[in-house]
Amino acid sequence: MTQLSGLPFDAIRELLQNMPGADSGAAQAVAERDSQLTKPPGSLGKLEDIALWLAKWSGRKPQVTRPLVAIFAGNHGVTKRGISAFPSEATAQMVANFSAGGAAINQICQTYDLGLKVFDLALDMPTEDFCEAPAMDERTCAATMAYGMESIAGNVDLLCIGEMGIGNTTSAAAIYYALYGGKAEDWAGAGTGADAEGIKHKAEVIEMAIKLHEKHLHDPLEVLRRLGGREIAAMAGAILAGRAQRVPVIVDGFIATSAAAILHAAEPTALDHCLISHVSAEQAHKKVLEKMGKEPLLDLGMRLGEGSGAAMAAGIVKAAAACHSGMATFAEAAVSNKDA
Amino acid sequence: MTQLSGLPFDAIRELLQNMPGADSGAAQAVAERDSQLTKPPGSLGKLEDIALWLAKWSGRKPQVTRPLVAIFAGNHGVTKRGISAFPSEATAQMVANFSAGGAAINQICQTYDLGLKVFDLALDMPTEDFCEAPAMDERTCAATMAYGMESIAGNVDLLCIGEMGIGNTTSAAAIYYALYGGKAEDWAGAGTGADAEGIKHKAEVIEMAIKLHEKHLHDPLEVLRRLGGREIAAMAGAILAGRAQRVPVIVDGFIATSAAAILHAAEPTALDHCLISHVSAEQAHKKVLEKMGKEPLLDLGMRLGEGSGAAMAAGIVKAAAACHSGMATFAEAAVSNKDA
Repeated sequence: MTQLSGLPFDAIRELLQNMPGADSGAAQAVAERDSQLTKPPGSLGKLEDIALWLAKWSGRKPQVTRPLVAIFAGNHGVTKRGISAFPSEATAQMVANFSAGGAAINQICQTYDLGLKVFDLALDMPTEDFCEAPAMDERTCAATMAYGMESIAGNVDLLCIGEMGIGNTTSAAAIYYALYGGKAEDWAGAGTGADAEGIKHKAEVIEMAIKLHEKHLHDPLEVLRRLGGREIAAMAGAILAGRAQRVPVIVDGFIATSAAAILHAAEPTALDHCLISHVSAEQAHKKVLEKMGKEPLLDLGMRLGEGSGAAMAAGIVKAAAACHSGMATFAEAAVSNKDA
Repeated sequence: MTQLSGLPFDAIRELLQNMPGADSGAAQAVAERDSQLTKPPGSLGKLEDIALWLAKWSGRKPQVTRPLVAIFAGNHGVTKRGISAFPSEATAQMVANFSAGGAAINQICQTYDLGLKVFDLALDMPTEDFCEAPAMDERTCAATMAYGMESIAGNVDLLCIGEMGIGNTTSAAAIYYALYGGKAEDWAGAGTGADAEGIKHKAEVIEMAIKLHEKHLHDPLEVLRRLGGREIAAMAGAILAGRAQRVPVIVDGFIATSAAAILHAAEPTALDHCLISHVSAEQAHKKVLEKMGKEPLLDLGMRLGEGSGAAMAAGIVKAAAACHSGMATFAEAAVSNKDA
């Protein structure tokens, strides 16, 4: 879909420097129509903001007719250090569970009529243990980003990105540490259910990784390939593709946000077309969002991943689009307006 | 549906003293099943709490197959004092708009496949101006509560209550002042769009009403009939009926909460089967919920009424029920559990 040229990361950098801006005409049309709808001005709160956001980044009247949840799954070499409460096999098993319709995300997609696609990324080839080497080489990382870009093929008009990957809260926490500094403990959390001892161990592993790579962490794309995972690289690609092709993107929780954070660090406007779906119960997520200057839509105490928070937010976004596009105006409904 | 006997309010008091409790068997079954579902324990956060709540108050496995949004509409004598940015006619006009499918609530109901019924309560007979007399006599208030109880007829399994009534933020604010004290300004807000001057006037009107009725405000049902409106009385009845007939109830925003607050003041356990959908942008709502010890599910900056916040929350509740009841267990999906 996207023609990559030159050195892998150079092509990504080029995309980051050539992102389309907001469609001001579509935004203006939403503002004008909103003022005529049968409700007090501003009374739909964030639903009005969402309608405006959809218009700005899709370039047309807000509508959600082909929403997609894309789940990217990857395995992580660092799991050999015992940083997860679940075994690595659970990644592939959960991918099978997605296909069979047995996971939480299947139920949420069915509730809100969202499409679901699962992209499994060489599950039998985990990334390198980033305590010993970069998780990926540059070519693998860039190619995985390009693969992630394919997720929006097929007239998708709202893209929710999520992930599955045993060990990936450790990878995400390492990315945040590299991007935002502080201490490893600031970013390490319970993941799928580590206890205090487990979280301490996770922080030590992250500290070790940062020490190994510290000379190379000024470049966000280097942070991604050294400390990330395939699913994180693919999500970063999907976000970029959404921007280029005018598909608004909803970002899931703690791990999906790490893909967004890489792009944000490389180019602060790279997430303007993204909605952060929710704040995860994973302890550092709130702080990450503050660092990025992003406000989450929901706070439901969720920490499941698999796009579940993004899909919940997609339910809200669908209602916001429906309100804007489906409501009657004061004139159509013959309702007395405030100024009448 | 409910046999009222004796003096009108006596029958209501009897209902309040004879509410069924939570179904502990259904709750236990949810807890057991939840621990086997293919997700880390607790990772669905509030969705898990909601599944438990549905079971407790419906007495069965969480499911939402016949959700209903019930909108109660009433007119208020106090509007003659110019406390709303919109004219009284807008109440009936918006009821017509609900019937025609042009309002925000129609779009939200369509998005989440929720039923919608509108109960208009003698719109051409506004309540008395409560600055001069009680808004309703006891018989009218109790009969309106009984009418509200009818809203759950027809196998409803989730009831969202909302309202429409020009002037009713003033009525709700007066109720909160009567129940929780403080000053009139603590409870008066912008409503459909009053400016600072308008809010000040609203507070003065509320102060006048409280002075007139102050000797009778120790009894929450007296607060309801003196300062409430027909739609507020009907919502209080609907909440009570939900409890009696094992239908979990979702309460909308600032005005719907005033109906809940009356019941809560009369009997602190009366709202155990209720979910507060959202915190309204109407300034005092957050404080009201704190007084009631209730946490809202959503914070979307909405302040529209017409059940819109409750309907948004119903979308979340549907997903919560679907996750609990539709997900595979670790055994069914052959996924390695944490302890495996």
